[in-house]
Amino acid sequence: MLNFEYHNPTKIFFGRGYETHIGRLVQPYGSKLLLHYGGKSIKRSGLYDRVVASLREAGVDFVELGGVQPNPRLSLVREGIELARKEEVRLILAVGGGSVIDSAKAIALGAVYNGDVWDFFEQKAVPERALPVAAILTIPAAGSENSPNTVLTHEALDLKVGTKNQISRPVFSILNPELCMTLPRAQIGYGVCDMMAHIMERYFTHTIHVDLTDRLCEGALRTAMENGRKLMRDSQDYDAWAEIMLTGTLAHNGLLGTGRTEDWGSHRIEHELSAIYDVPHGAGLAVVFPAWIKYVWRENPDMFLQFAVKVMDVDPSFRDKEEAILEGVRRLEAFYKTMELPTRLDELGIGDERLEEMAEKALLRGPIGGLKVLTAQDVLEILKLTLK
Amino acid sequence: MLNFEYHNPTKIFFGRGYETHIGRLVQPYGSKLLLHYGGKSIKRSGLYDRVVASLREAGVDFVELGGVQPNPRLSLVREGIELARKEEVRLILAVGGGSVIDSAKAIALGAVYNGDVWDFFEQKAVPERALPVAAILTIPAAGSENSPNTVLTHEALDLKVGTKNQISRPVFSILNPELCMTLPRAQIGYGVCDMMAHIMERYFTHTIHVDLTDRLCEGALRTAMENGRKLMRDSQDYDAWAEIMLTGTLAHNGLLGTGRTEDWGSHRIEHELSAIYDVPHGAGLAVVFPAWIKYVWRENPDMFLQFAVKVMDVDPSFRDKEEAILEGVRRLEAFYKTMELPTRLDELGIGDERLEEMAEKALLRGPIGGLKVLTAQDVLEILKLTLK
Repeated sequence: MLNFEYHNPTKIFFGRGYETHIGRLVQPYGSKLLLHYGGKSIKRSGLYDRVVASLREAGVDFVELGGVQPNPRLSLVREGIELARKEEVRLILAVGGGSVIDSAKAIALGAVYNGDVWDFFEQKAVPERALPVAAILTIPAAGSENSPNTVLTHEALDLKVGTKNQISRPVFSILNPELCMTLPRAQIGYGVCDMMAHIMERYFTHTIHVDLTDRLCEGALRTAMENGRKLMRDSQDYDAWAEIMLTGTLAHNGLLGTGRTEDWGSHRIEHELSAIYDVPHGAGLAVVFPAWIKYVWRENPDMFLQFAVKVMDVDPSFRDKEEAILEGVRRLEAFYKTMELPTRLDELGIGDERLEEMAEKALLRGPIGGLKVLTAQDVLEILKLTLK
Repeated sequence: MLNFEYHNPTKIFFGRGYETHIGRLVQPYGSKLLLHYGGKSIKRSGLYDRVVASLREAGVDFVELGGVQPNPRLSLVREGIELARKEEVRLILAVGGGSVIDSAKAIALGAVYNGDVWDFFEQKAVPERALPVAAILTIPAAGSENSPNTVLTHEALDLKVGTKNQISRPVFSILNPELCMTLPRAQIGYGVCDMMAHIMERYFTHTIHVDLTDRLCEGALRTAMENGRKLMRDSQDYDAWAEIMLTGTLAHNGLLGTGRTEDWGSHRIEHELSAIYDVPHGAGLAVVFPAWIKYVWRENPDMFLQFAVKVMDVDPSFRDKEEAILEGVRRLEAFYKTMELPTRLDELGIGDERLEEMAEKALLRGPIGGLKVLTAQDVLEILKLTLK
């Protein structure tokens, strides 16, 4: 196990009805907040009205900025920063999924920074402070409600870039599984696939003697799969949503990666896919991850055998590791299919025209991968495996 | 899954050498601290000298109070409170195991309270504030380094009582597995047994639909057992200590109990044992826990069958649940034996003379148990099972 430091001060309010207490919960943070959200869904579901009613009841003053899109944009963040400064807001309240929360985190960083917020994403600057962010989560997937991570898309440059800052962890997040019940069916698969990727990117490591986090990862993956299947049968299953929501938060709050190296190659490759083609992140991951495993498993066969046996229930075939490992990948793909996800590039309506471009862009900001450090050629080979 | 709130702001520094940075780490908390510890072991091991050197190097002023005993005493806590007030200390630094950290937490509560600290343990008062506590952990067992819990013994009354206050979570804790290597052999078993009890008391529940925390508990229990066995073969195994240390912290930081009812009956019964006979807590638990399972499993057979199969690797015998469940208990007892722990009362040198007294005392502060609420008669029956 490697040395590590871990600090996760986000307070979690989990369960039915917490969003109706939002007014009381934000009161300690001062006089005015920025209510940040996406589009129509929270208005249609009634969540917007409940939040606004609670804020008004508590006498909390607020300004609003809606319009966050999936793969949140820098342009809206800049608008939010201007608004936050002008109105002197003291807290950003994100109501939505990972895109809304990421957008809120970027506004929170930029509002108190004397420069362009994109500096943090280009690693030109390290943020020293941020406005507090609180979240009411509606889509369990990205884990942003409990993570230090923020991913933003620079539209003009076709770039989707992540940054990680401990001060970006929300001060509190509300996770009410009831809020997931109105999600479009496709979001179930996208979300489960995203959180599984967050776990697997921590799980597949070269670090040895990490029994506890290995077991936690395996348990979280099995829980995601079991309850993902349940939701495909019944999207109104509160208990299954509760498991998925809690798993999504654990998947990306950093605990599962403590004491071990991680490998974020698949996520980085997928970011190129969704930057260019604007495909849903979860769908892109379902295409990229199996290809990544097929390409890199020889770096640490025992790790992938453990995955096949302990997560995918492959009969441990210690005499023919390769067969067991590849059976593990096939079962992962079969699971994605159960979740109505694509597992090949053409199912996303994408051909092989821009593979080289994506491979080069993936490497623009330095080497990617941990278990295996990938060159542009490696990324290209992985992308080619997504065609077959 | 039940609604829950979870907030764990303790920062963890995990791995080799962190204790040599203690001076720098406590600096932000102000001018003077109380260094609190047990007896000779931290002096013999050289830890005391390293801590003092780091404090002096950082120019941190401190006063000292040693002498904490296992099952920490109210009398010493009162002495610490007086000293902390007189010297106007701003932080309590606990260097030791759970007893030292618990004693430090009690001092931290009492030093800023206008009354007797025992009020909090008698539930006569709820603490509103506390001095910050930081810890350098030397014994992985009690989980106090990351928990809101404090257990204290009132010597005059033969009472061992716990209290739980979120403000008692340490501001940071240093967990260096190297520090465990000088522990007496018996502490390995005591510690592993204590952390397993913390997990099992959360695991055995009536709450349904708690897949994720079920899986996390099972993974943590298996990790504790696997690495406990390794330490009995080689007490200098850094990696095994790292697993045990991390598992001990996860076991009692509250995460594994989120969204589910818990059952602390076994712990409460053991507290009566160690209050009267001053036996090591871990040894007492190894005697009480199997007896408790044998007495209560019929309350929720499927839960105990899951334990037998998923934790103890009993072949799932769904047609004869009782046999599989009891085989699970036998394997738990066999594991305790591997850890050189007692599993019957006479192995602790205790007869049946004061069973009734313990049973009555266990109920003094209200009903105990969650999966099964226990009467004094139930406790007596459980204690009788520890004789066989």
